[in-house]
Amino acid sequence: MLLDKLFLLVPFGSLFALFFALYLFVTVSRQEPGNARMQEISAAIRVGAVAYLKRQYKGVALFFVVMFIILLLMAAAGNVSIYVPFAFLTGGLFSGLSGFFGMMTATKANARTANAAMKSLNAGLRVAFNSGAVMGLVVVGLGLLDLSIWFTLLRYVWHQPLDVVTSTMLNFGMGASSMALFARVGGGIFTKAADVGADLVGKVEVGIPEDDPRNPAVIADNVGDNVGDVAGMGADLYESYVGSIVATSALAMAAFPQRLWMAAVMVPLIMAVIGVLASIIGTFFVRSGEKAEQKVLLAALRRGIFSSAILIAIFSYFVVRFTLGPANIGVYIAVLAGLGAGVLIGLLTEYYTSSTYKPTRSVADAAPTGPATVIIGGLSVGMLSTFLPVVIVCVAILVSYFAAGGGDFARGLYGIAIAAVGMLSTLGITLATDAYGPVADNAGGIAEMAELPDHVRERTDALDALGNTTAATGKGFAIGSAALTALALIAAFTEKVDGVLAKQAVELGYNYTNLTHTLNLTDPSVLVGLLVGAMLPFLFCSMTMRAVGRAAQSIVFEVRRQFREIVGLMEGKAKPDYARCVDICTRGAQKEMVLPALSAIIAPIAVGLLAGIKAVAGLLGGATASGFVLAVMMANAGGSWDNAKKYIEEGNYGGKGSDAHKAAVVGDTVGDPFKDTSGPSLNILIKLTSMVSVVFAVFILKNALIK
Amino acid sequence: MLLDKLFLLVPFGSLFALFFALYLFVTVSRQEPGNARMQEISAAIRVGAVAYLKRQYKGVALFFVVMFIILLLMAAAGNVSIYVPFAFLTGGLFSGLSGFFGMMTATKANARTANAAMKSLNAGLRVAFNSGAVMGLVVVGLGLLDLSIWFTLLRYVWHQPLDVVTSTMLNFGMGASSMALFARVGGGIFTKAADVGADLVGKVEVGIPEDDPRNPAVIADNVGDNVGDVAGMGADLYESYVGSIVATSALAMAAFPQRLWMAAVMVPLIMAVIGVLASIIGTFFVRSGEKAEQKVLLAALRRGIFSSAILIAIFSYFVVRFTLGPANIGVYIAVLAGLGAGVLIGLLTEYYTSSTYKPTRSVADAAPTGPATVIIGGLSVGMLSTFLPVVIVCVAILVSYFAAGGGDFARGLYGIAIAAVGMLSTLGITLATDAYGPVADNAGGIAEMAELPDHVRERTDALDALGNTTAATGKGFAIGSAALTALALIAAFTEKVDGVLAKQAVELGYNYTNLTHTLNLTDPSVLVGLLVGAMLPFLFCSMTMRAVGRAAQSIVFEVRRQFREIVGLMEGKAKPDYARCVDICTRGAQKEMVLPALSAIIAPIAVGLLAGIKAVAGLLGGATASGFVLAVMMANAGGSWDNAKKYIEEGNYGGKGSDAHKAAVVGDTVGDPFKDTSGPSLNILIKLTSMVSVVFAVFILKNALIK
Repeated sequence: MLLDKLFLLVPFGSLFALFFALYLFVTVSRQEPGNARMQEISAAIRVGAVAYLKRQYKGVALFFVVMFIILLLMAAAGNVSIYVPFAFLTGGLFSGLSGFFGMMTATKANARTANAAMKSLNAGLRVAFNSGAVMGLVVVGLGLLDLSIWFTLLRYVWHQPLDVVTSTMLNFGMGASSMALFARVGGGIFTKAADVGADLVGKVEVGIPEDDPRNPAVIADNVGDNVGDVAGMGADLYESYVGSIVATSALAMAAFPQRLWMAAVMVPLIMAVIGVLASIIGTFFVRSGEKAEQKVLLAALRRGIFSSAILIAIFSYFVVRFTLGPANIGVYIAVLAGLGAGVLIGLLTEYYTSSTYKPTRSVADAAPTGPATVIIGGLSVGMLSTFLPVVIVCVAILVSYFAAGGGDFARGLYGIAIAAVGMLSTLGITLATDAYGPVADNAGGIAEMAELPDHVRERTDALDALGNTTAATGKGFAIGSAALTALALIAAFTEKVDGVLAKQAVELGYNYTNLTHTLNLTDPSVLVGLLVGAMLPFLFCSMTMRAVGRAAQSIVFEVRRQFREIVGLMEGKAKPDYARCVDICTRGAQKEMVLPALSAIIAPIAVGLLAGIKAVAGLLGGATASGFVLAVMMANAGGSWDNAKKYIEEGNYGGKGSDAHKAAVVGDTVGDPFKDTSGPSLNILIKLTSMVSVVFAVFILKNALIK
Repeated sequence: MLLDKLFLLVPFGSLFALFFALYLFVTVSRQEPGNARMQEISAAIRVGAVAYLKRQYKGVALFFVVMFIILLLMAAAGNVSIYVPFAFLTGGLFSGLSGFFGMMTATKANARTANAAMKSLNAGLRVAFNSGAVMGLVVVGLGLLDLSIWFTLLRYVWHQPLDVVTSTMLNFGMGASSMALFARVGGGIFTKAADVGADLVGKVEVGIPEDDPRNPAVIADNVGDNVGDVAGMGADLYESYVGSIVATSALAMAAFPQRLWMAAVMVPLIMAVIGVLASIIGTFFVRSGEKAEQKVLLAALRRGIFSSAILIAIFSYFVVRFTLGPANIGVYIAVLAGLGAGVLIGLLTEYYTSSTYKPTRSVADAAPTGPATVIIGGLSVGMLSTFLPVVIVCVAILVSYFAAGGGDFARGLYGIAIAAVGMLSTLGITLATDAYGPVADNAGGIAEMAELPDHVRERTDALDALGNTTAATGKGFAIGSAALTALALIAAFTEKVDGVLAKQAVELGYNYTNLTHTLNLTDPSVLVGLLVGAMLPFLFCSMTMRAVGRAAQSIVFEVRRQFREIVGLMEGKAKPDYARCVDICTRGAQKEMVLPALSAIIAPIAVGLLAGIKAVAGLLGGATASGFVLAVMMANAGGSWDNAKKYIEEGNYGGKGSDAHKAAVVGDTVGDPFKDTSGPSLNILIKLTSMVSVVFAVFILKNALIK
């Protein structure tokens, strides 16, 4: 039928995105790689980054093998379908690949960006942005590819009913989330350990400038930008993107009459395709003049994002209109609600974290009275900044629920899910504006180390500073969509449990058949789950922050050792042992990432077995609510401290070297794990716990202590 | 009937507590007030403290008048019973009185404690502890008095049915909570503004020791201990104590068959009476030798608490056995669960905040690498410390629910509520061990200012250091019981709404009659409420922390001004203007306390009107969960920073004046608003929002946009 023909758009869109990414990759590679020194540094960074990913994938592979076997056993026991273990693997594989390709491009582009910046600011922007766009398009391209493959196999080769198709696709979301969490946490620990370690000894103790080639941790620091902010973020947003789509289609059956099932499953997929095209078109709007002003550059990126957002807003109307029919045009309102909420959250993030506005200024104002007031100021800005995003998401929830559902419960939930898809439909380009930041950051480092003329560093700094804002915006998108997706997953969870219970209530010893009507907020199991769920993000952040602390400490000792033992290092006569620091960060990150990541998988299962299936639902609700708030708070506090420091470095309150600056540096150091390790991992934590709950629902039902 | 005769125990217990408090007050007053200088200082502190409370009560009185009128109008509109406005007033009045009496005793005892400490450590301990015991007994005495008066009037004078009696008593909980929130927030802002202000200029800038009479803010600092840690805490725990009792009796009707109603209402009241007697007996066990070791002193206080806990554990068995009958002996298990959970949380708090254990040591270990690592370390300790308390409370919830209810929903909820009563039944003595801390703190300050021999300061320091631990424990109790009480209040809320809906569903335009069956966790209104609720504590903490920052800043400027303008101040030739600093703190606290306090009252009403009654239930769930976790995190992080600093001051990592010490001081300063302003206010915030929701439930039902 027509819709099945329409499905062909999805693989087509996927390949189009990947080919355009390839084209951009080639154009980036064609750029001049710069002089020998620059190439040498860039190579060193690439080697370190690849070495890290190799090690990480080895460790993660082990985890995937174990999970794969567990899922096989569960499939054998009839707890999950036989497709689940394999779907789980592919999800992890593609999520990892997204990060890998993005990182390979970034490590190729850094020296080329520095080199292009010698010509002009715009040239530098183009190279950095194009490499970012490669990442953005690879993520959406691979996401659609994975979806296409499974959809084709399940529906057209194995002729499975649609609900089996969607529930299976939901399971590679779990694979993607697992990989994303490892990548985010591991990469986040690496990059911040290197960053903090390099600064504490280099800047503070020895007193050499940032990115000084004499600093043994300088390469590790630049490697960190790639493995954390590029590879980690790529896996993260791949997971968000795919997760929102599969969560939506998983709700399609319950939401619509059978004749509309296929249409309801297609809508998120086709909207994603439109997002791809809109993003590609948007990239052509990103141009800049020679004025190295934040405003000008930001406007350049904004043009790209807004133009694609508008295109999506227009075309998705027709998608909904012609698939679900005019009767369900409310679904389009839901899409707009998500799209709008995403843009608003992005702008708010900028308001709270950019030094051009009051909140971050207030943090800088506190600097003259010392580090304590800076910390208190940043924390309260972060806490304050949770208010409006929560309100916006809540409005988006209510609007999309009532617009799409018109009072119908299941259809309303579908509306909430599709809102998340709408929010992420611009991912191709938003991710481009986000992933280009670390490239510019690296370029700056290379310019410094290769002793390029000052105006080059100025230009790369201008690009980098902007990168901070766009990175914060990207985090806003990730967490905002996570809240909506998580809600959809909670719905998918209860729906699945209901389905099972309806069939097997008796044999499982449950005295009710419909969970969604007994998921009472005053039920003690739900309350217990709620409390544990609210605590989980705090526990997770505690673990990741300690991990950064420990890893950073080992770097501090190593850097001190090298300055002590390598004669002539300070004079620049001898070379530091860069590889050693990279290796220490790698080992540290690998060791430290295991416990936090596993906790996300173990928590819902443990709670379910001890306090019953209702407690799991409570846990998901609690973790989503407190995780969302905590993530926004940490991301914005961190961004605010970072930019407050930069604001002072621009010469305010005595500028660099003043006591106010020292105080601001303390804030920035505290903010590093906030905004680049703990905070951005929370959105994955939320979704992974939900995914795990869905997959293990039947297992928990069968073995829970409290029925 | 028998139970009505049994009720006579309540006023009797109340008066007994009050008379014993009076007796202790007299014994304290009989002590030598010390030399002229000491009396002069003590008088200055008392004058400042009274001046503050006068000002505060004026401001709060205005709020109470307004609320009284609003409630009168609501009563006229038939939204609440006519008793509600008056119950609201008395709750506030008694809550305020608890703080006032406690503070008058504390300000009398401070100089006397210093003086007694000249004789012996034990003498000092006795005076300080007795004054604390006055506070503890006044709180429980007034609580039972308020309950007795209303119970007598409603049941025996106006012959109201029991459900009217309990629902009315629930409403003076709201009055108590409002007063408590103002007292906690106002007092917390005052004490930390003075503390931070005095330290930042005195210690850091000018370099004079703590409590140096030349510091213009030194009196304000000592006043702060009294208005914040004594008056504020008194009002706070009065609210917790009364709240847990009225919440339990409000659930009695639904939980039991009519013949047991009176019994179910009596149980929490009589248990409170037993708690009074047990506490009084416990006070006699508090003695100490001459060894100024923390362990010895702590053991002395422990003896008191544990002995009364054991007495309660024994006698409450008979209470339950003979009121509710052997069939409901499970209620006794619930009491034990609460009692045990309270003790465990207390011990855990000590583990995480005392420098004798690993967590706080780890914070101190981070000091040599600077303030940033201290902050990160303290935050992660605080976050980590939320895990076990949550688990303990969850276990207590499940045990008390299933033990008391045996599967019956309403009776299980009653069990959860009675667990909170069990946890707080030792309040008389736990509060004594808690309130004595600030007295010892003041005594130390007076010893310093009056230049008493060093061994006096050593003894008061020993008492004070212990005070930090007991204070942390007290906060653990307050927040632990708050979680349980809040759950009971949520149940009371839904129950009330159900009752109303059952009657008026049609006319109110609701398409369902039983909320407890539609409070579905996947309902968008509930989810929206959950998100807003989870955000509320963060917003609240942001406001209170900023308030402390602003107030502290104005003190900093004033102290600097006095050092600049008053000639001969540094040389000790001229006297600083103490009153001016007290006045600035007072005005600052009064101005700043309004917004946070009001937000707790406005939030549930606003959310209810915009997103419906279900969103209110969600909000209460979200606020309870995230508020509980955040409160534990802030209290323990703050305590850990404080003791890490003290640990370094004992000579570790270079001791006083070292860079490590400077770093630890930053942590301590950040921790001040954490543990003494924002954190301890959260438990009141949670309960006040619940109380407000109960009182305004009908109003919200009638006027909500989303039905």
